[in-house]
Amino acid sequence: MKQASLIIIGDEILSGRTDDKNLAYLAKWLGKLGINLSEVRVVLDDESAIIEAVNNLRVKYDYVFTTGGIGPTHDDITTECVAKAFGVKTRIDDDALEKMKEFLAGKELTEPLLKMLRIPEGGELIYSPATKAPGYKVDNVFVMAGIPRIMQGMLEGMYDYLEIGEIMHSRSFDIMVGESFFAEDLTHIQANFPEVLVGSYPFSKEGIYGATIVLRSTDESLLDSCELKVKDLISKY
Amino acid sequence: MKQASLIIIGDEILSGRTDDKNLAYLAKWLGKLGINLSEVRVVLDDESAIIEAVNNLRVKYDYVFTTGGIGPTHDDITTECVAKAFGVKTRIDDDALEKMKEFLAGKELTEPLLKMLRIPEGGELIYSPATKAPGYKVDNVFVMAGIPRIMQGMLEGMYDYLEIGEIMHSRSFDIMVGESFFAEDLTHIQANFPEVLVGSYPFSKEGIYGATIVLRSTDESLLDSCELKVKDLISKY
Repeated sequence: MKQASLIIIGDEILSGRTDDKNLAYLAKWLGKLGINLSEVRVVLDDESAIIEAVNNLRVKYDYVFTTGGIGPTHDDITTECVAKAFGVKTRIDDDALEKMKEFLAGKELTEPLLKMLRIPEGGELIYSPATKAPGYKVDNVFVMAGIPRIMQGMLEGMYDYLEIGEIMHSRSFDIMVGESFFAEDLTHIQANFPEVLVGSYPFSKEGIYGATIVLRSTDESLLDSCELKVKDLISKY
Repeated sequence: MKQASLIIIGDEILSGRTDDKNLAYLAKWLGKLGINLSEVRVVLDDESAIIEAVNNLRVKYDYVFTTGGIGPTHDDITTECVAKAFGVKTRIDDDALEKMKEFLAGKELTEPLLKMLRIPEGGELIYSPATKAPGYKVDNVFVMAGIPRIMQGMLEGMYDYLEIGEIMHSRSFDIMVGESFFAEDLTHIQANFPEVLVGSYPFSKEGIYGATIVLRSTDESLLDSCELKVKDLISKY
């Protein structure tokens, strides 16, 4: 199964000012393609932090996605940093320039607009239905905007570059009792089904503790058998 | 200014099943103490991933916080991993055991309950008003539960261990025009106020592009002067 990672770039996420929406969206989108999201890093709009994350993760995972920092303002430094991570310069793409001129229809092509057409040498443009300014890929690194609607459009354009894996099926069941009551039984179930990922995610609702037991596997018949055991367990409470 | 990082531990976040709520809460809580949240990593319930993140970040930042994976089930492996990261064994804390026995009032102290009382050698318990099972700190690593309400309680107990910094003040202003229109002017403002962090965070609302310009500094009088320039800029549109 291919493994992916995501770098969320932006001071606004780390200050708590903006809630990230892209992690969950990307995770589910990749899940449907049979690709695992295995690690996420959130970094500041800081050159060395971005370069380090890109260079760490692009050797560690099959795919690296980034969100944020490709706009026209001075704090948008993602493209510059991705180029530095790959040791290349940036260039203005002719095709993107053509499309932007058409869009502007005679209006001035300012420096900030030009900045958004810049991509690292060796990169390929990936258009989004939502904007004239494209995302792009360099090797296994996919660079996207931070605004969710635009990011989601760019992601569709990246589909063709990804290798589809076996789909992970998942089933989940709520149990309305604290985890410590059923933890030992659940350990036995996991031991009997080593090829099913058995997870337990506690919650509290109006002061009552419960948990969601999640089973994940590429094999549906294994999930069927495992589900029976989990239902037996739940019926005890 | 002290720098902090956060490790969010849990398959459920990386599968997109659960939205993390702890990042934004921790960021704002630390911000009020004058401590910067500088990096976040989200990792799987996987031993090597957790150990690597703990060991990377505890040398890189003043404080490392972790959330998740300290419950009683088989997929809760945070404590074991933190102990391995520090090269120590785990122990059952006498004080925590005492409190748990009181709480149980004669009921059976099962293996899963005992598991939650285990902390790495050299660690100190940190109680939460919300639960009998404590969080803990080892050196500069603060280990907390993943359930937001419990995590927030544990965080209050960690206050005494943190060094308060200079408070970063922030002011934000919406401008209802695309970033490319004002990017050059904003670059000049940033250049004239090198000690103010000037950020621009684009959004789209009902199809109209705009951005929030955020100014951050420990110096309120600098913010006053910078604010005037930003208001001049906004009034142009």
